[in-house]
Amino acid sequence: MEFDSRKRVVIENVKPEVDSGRFAIKRGIGEKIEVTADIFADGHDVVSARVLYRKEEEREWRSAPMKLLQNDRWKGEWVAEEVGRYQYTVEGWIDPFKTWQQDLRKKIDAGQPSRTDLRMGIRYVEEASKRALKGDREKLLRLAETLSNEKDQEAVVALSLDETLSELLTLYLDKTFTVFYDRELVVVVDREKALFSAWYELFPRSCSPEPGRHGTFKDCEALCKEVAEMGFDILYLPPIHPIGKTSRKGKDNALEVLPDDVGSPWAIGSEAGGHKAVHPQLGTLEDFERFVEKAKAHGLEIALDLAFQCSPDHPYVKDHPEWFRWRPDGTIQYAENPPKKYEDIIPFNFGSDDWRTLWEELRSIVLFWVGKGVRIFRVDNPHTKPFAFWEWLIQEVKKDYPDVIFFSEAFTRPKVMYRLAKAGFTQSYTYFTWRNTKRELTGYLTELAQTDVREYFKPNFWPNTPDILPEYLQYGGRPAFMIRLVLAATLASSYGIYGPAFELSVTEAIPGKEEYLHSEKYELKHWDREAAGTLRDFIAKVNSIRKENPALQTTWNLSFHEVDNDTLLFYTKITDDLTNMIMVVVNLDPFHTQSGWVKVPVNKLGIDPAQPYLVHDLLSDDKTIWQGESNFVELNPQILPANIFRVRKKMKREMDFDYFM
Amino acid sequence: MEFDSRKRVVIENVKPEVDSGRFAIKRGIGEKIEVTADIFADGHDVVSARVLYRKEEEREWRSAPMKLLQNDRWKGEWVAEEVGRYQYTVEGWIDPFKTWQQDLRKKIDAGQPSRTDLRMGIRYVEEASKRALKGDREKLLRLAETLSNEKDQEAVVALSLDETLSELLTLYLDKTFTVFYDRELVVVVDREKALFSAWYELFPRSCSPEPGRHGTFKDCEALCKEVAEMGFDILYLPPIHPIGKTSRKGKDNALEVLPDDVGSPWAIGSEAGGHKAVHPQLGTLEDFERFVEKAKAHGLEIALDLAFQCSPDHPYVKDHPEWFRWRPDGTIQYAENPPKKYEDIIPFNFGSDDWRTLWEELRSIVLFWVGKGVRIFRVDNPHTKPFAFWEWLIQEVKKDYPDVIFFSEAFTRPKVMYRLAKAGFTQSYTYFTWRNTKRELTGYLTELAQTDVREYFKPNFWPNTPDILPEYLQYGGRPAFMIRLVLAATLASSYGIYGPAFELSVTEAIPGKEEYLHSEKYELKHWDREAAGTLRDFIAKVNSIRKENPALQTTWNLSFHEVDNDTLLFYTKITDDLTNMIMVVVNLDPFHTQSGWVKVPVNKLGIDPAQPYLVHDLLSDDKTIWQGESNFVELNPQILPANIFRVRKKMKREMDFDYFM
Repeated sequence: MEFDSRKRVVIENVKPEVDSGRFAIKRGIGEKIEVTADIFADGHDVVSARVLYRKEEEREWRSAPMKLLQNDRWKGEWVAEEVGRYQYTVEGWIDPFKTWQQDLRKKIDAGQPSRTDLRMGIRYVEEASKRALKGDREKLLRLAETLSNEKDQEAVVALSLDETLSELLTLYLDKTFTVFYDRELVVVVDREKALFSAWYELFPRSCSPEPGRHGTFKDCEALCKEVAEMGFDILYLPPIHPIGKTSRKGKDNALEVLPDDVGSPWAIGSEAGGHKAVHPQLGTLEDFERFVEKAKAHGLEIALDLAFQCSPDHPYVKDHPEWFRWRPDGTIQYAENPPKKYEDIIPFNFGSDDWRTLWEELRSIVLFWVGKGVRIFRVDNPHTKPFAFWEWLIQEVKKDYPDVIFFSEAFTRPKVMYRLAKAGFTQSYTYFTWRNTKRELTGYLTELAQTDVREYFKPNFWPNTPDILPEYLQYGGRPAFMIRLVLAATLASSYGIYGPAFELSVTEAIPGKEEYLHSEKYELKHWDREAAGTLRDFIAKVNSIRKENPALQTTWNLSFHEVDNDTLLFYTKITDDLTNMIMVVVNLDPFHTQSGWVKVPVNKLGIDPAQPYLVHDLLSDDKTIWQGESNFVELNPQILPANIFRVRKKMKREMDFDYFM
Repeated sequence: MEFDSRKRVVIENVKPEVDSGRFAIKRGIGEKIEVTADIFADGHDVVSARVLYRKEEEREWRSAPMKLLQNDRWKGEWVAEEVGRYQYTVEGWIDPFKTWQQDLRKKIDAGQPSRTDLRMGIRYVEEASKRALKGDREKLLRLAETLSNEKDQEAVVALSLDETLSELLTLYLDKTFTVFYDRELVVVVDREKALFSAWYELFPRSCSPEPGRHGTFKDCEALCKEVAEMGFDILYLPPIHPIGKTSRKGKDNALEVLPDDVGSPWAIGSEAGGHKAVHPQLGTLEDFERFVEKAKAHGLEIALDLAFQCSPDHPYVKDHPEWFRWRPDGTIQYAENPPKKYEDIIPFNFGSDDWRTLWEELRSIVLFWVGKGVRIFRVDNPHTKPFAFWEWLIQEVKKDYPDVIFFSEAFTRPKVMYRLAKAGFTQSYTYFTWRNTKRELTGYLTELAQTDVREYFKPNFWPNTPDILPEYLQYGGRPAFMIRLVLAATLASSYGIYGPAFELSVTEAIPGKEEYLHSEKYELKHWDREAAGTLRDFIAKVNSIRKENPALQTTWNLSFHEVDNDTLLFYTKITDDLTNMIMVVVNLDPFHTQSGWVKVPVNKLGIDPAQPYLVHDLLSDDKTIWQGESNFVELNPQILPANIFRVRKKMKREMDFDYFM
């Protein structure tokens, strides 16, 4: 410990900070970084402080002033304007001239400043002049002279307390004993889609318009328009690589396999290639690249699946036996989580002494697809690979491609999920999939949006996935799908669905399980995209509401409010400047009409409780006049299970009532 | 960042830890150190963990096992048996054999362990044998052989799942890739008085039995018996050094001084010497040393005041002008906090370029008194000196004298007080002095006893000091003194009073202020220690209750409970093993009898709600039979404003009712 009696400022409890600065916080581009800290010194001297920040590759710090909030807590804020890694820290110092001014003011109140008191101030002006640039130096010297020669004490006092003087002196403060916070913290700034995105997952092999024919990238191109019209901006494909034959699973995960069974896309690798190849029946690499381009023309970005595992037929198994585990009988160790066995899937042995070559190969896979224009990866089961690997991989890739987004598919224990997020994953799957009641949703969302978790864990809400058809959807049917869609799309700023099973409200599950019956994971599907009752238009509506309302483009402004019916959920999302105010009411009961009185946070919305305001339901386009806190809502799930109100308040009293109409 | 694919365990969120390990936690000797941490790995492997600890000067770690609580949170505990500095940290590793056993159990449940599965276990046994000590090596090799040759699969399984086998293998685990927590944390272990102490403050110069004569150390000796009989164990003296004459303050802090005015003991230094001298009228250094010895014979330890400041006559001012601030008119800068001026007191300039020699001199003062047998220092206004100075000083002194106790007299903003505690102060003054209502007391005590603050901030509660006669005491009179004494003595395990002003219930204050009228700080006092109404016996009773009841010897077991009257405060203090259970009820209203129904936490006390239990009021010696949660109390502040119940529960149903009598 280096001690210096002259470094008197203390800076502690700096936020945001993850695990003592061990991990970066995350922000989307344009998001504010509000830095707070406890800052103080011994005694009564005046302390000043600022936030310092810079891009990691820069030498010079930029700065933002900090202001005292209360109880020695200070705050400063800045906005990261570029994608990449920034550092930030806090600087604090004692300002002797401002301290002298403060004491002088107190002495004046007590009527007792002496000539000596005033002469001490002149000393500070003279000292500052020695450090000042030429123009200012003369200015300060002249000032010191005026102060010394002026006979009228009141004039001296007035000049001494001048704000522009203290600002000039601050400029030439002696910062020899300025104090910096112990650590330089890091924020990873991601592009906008990290913050606000709507995902659509589909199996390319099921995209053929002809029943029974294996879909191709070309078929997928034809679907881009429809997906884009639904308002999605990311089209995510399960693995597109060659599928192994050895131990291939049949339909419904059967151990017996029939000749035309297509196998699970997650059993990656065959004689046709591994993670850098595409499944021959989907097309060629060139077809894929063209598909990526076509999708882009529709405003769709393609996301690929990173499933770091092999089928027994993957070329790696022969070429790199050192990357796998071998059993005493000489067979390769397949994946198992007793009593479950996955004979068609071979995990890598990350405990291998040759782990370095394995890590490098896996990095080369990501960079290969980056080279093909892919910038978004959904990562399969990251929690079964070492945390250190992900931390390294994500840093390595983002070093050159800071716009790459990694989406963690870990449905596991909370601390494991959070650690993956800290290790660098841009977005994460969540427990939203199983949070259905008011209590469950408010509890979970409060943890995600109101605690320090929000600094590093960026939720992406999925009502269903190819692996999960939740009980709530199985039993609740079409209204349940609408309910879960509105919740996912308005609670979190990033969400996604697995379609067309979602928009067609597919509810058939394996009895007693939350898995799809006849899962698309093991067979080709032919979906009737035009079926009656499709939620396509409803989804399009919800997505267009998200795009038009900035308040729905962040998760962090979420706030729950009272409603006197436990099957109704009521929450607001409001922009900082109050220009976009959204109130959502959702009937969580997919079977019955529910009604109740919501308690509108009029104060927070800046609404005069004595004046009417317009609530415009963007889903139904209905408009209603409300007043005060308590207002009535009623939702029939067979028609519309939710309201997404935009609040339009009467901005000025003199405005005509016509304004509302 | 060094990455290794094979170091798979994560250890995070370790507690207790102060400011990322920047500061030590504190414990009294014999107190438990419960270490908790989030510990987990990727995948499903079995993780094990332990706490490591050692005295700072030791090389080898000792260890205590950690157990999983829930949600990946682990706990281990140990007890520091010596005074001094210990380090502690956490170690975690993956146990491949236990993982294999866990998988085997699951496979058996599913009915499917294969020969190969079992042979993998043998491989672990063989590997461990290579690392084992001779005797164990043979044992393991024999076991591996038995397992390999045994034809009966059930016998192999039974042998493989044997607990002693897994324990033996744990002993010879390959720990190459064990993971240690990032930081080695520190705990400062103090002697018992740091944890549990009762302080009595008096002015030695007022100890003369003859009115008007300046008291001496000899006079103080004569008072030791009385102070010890009141049950105190620390006798704290305001500064005992020569007092300056220049700018000396008169009675009642008057600027005019009369010839017989004695001045403030905090205006330290005259031609008779400075911080290493004693006031000539108190006696000689030898007298002081004899007094320390005499006090010890009564079980009293002497605490001195460290007031690092000088009178204008202090020898330092001439010998070390570089340690002070000088004004433009050539005068020395006295202490001021505008509009207040303290012309008799000159602060050191810790911003001096010669701060190193100043620090060393101040250390030499502490070591001087340590050399005279003093091991407890009450430090005056530490918040007006740099935090770095205290951190250095306390570490320096405790390096050779780990039994020294530093008590911080900082009545200032909360974060400043907490930072001083982090910097190393053993105990701290608190806001207790101004916390009177139920809401204030429960709020403040919850902050002190139930949050992380308790790891470093050790409260010492004072109902009055020579500087503070709180309004509550001024108006409440004698019952108020009793109330505040019981609160101080039973809420916190360390407390103190400034006497005899306390036991004589002195209430005369400067009008409109919380300061004593005719303060002893500026004049000699002659106290009538035998005055009617003295609280001496009451205090003795409370202190003896503290000594007899271990539950009152720690602050951390405090727990508030409901009572249906807001002027009654009800709390319990219970030892971990439930052998000592104290319930305190205090009437916070010094004027009126108050009554109400308390809600006894019978479950926590292990009391059968259907059975009677005895509550024995240790203050009045009354015994009552209570039953269940709700019980009635009534307190007349003119008689006794509090109950300190010891709970004696019926331990076994078969015991006779006589037990209670």
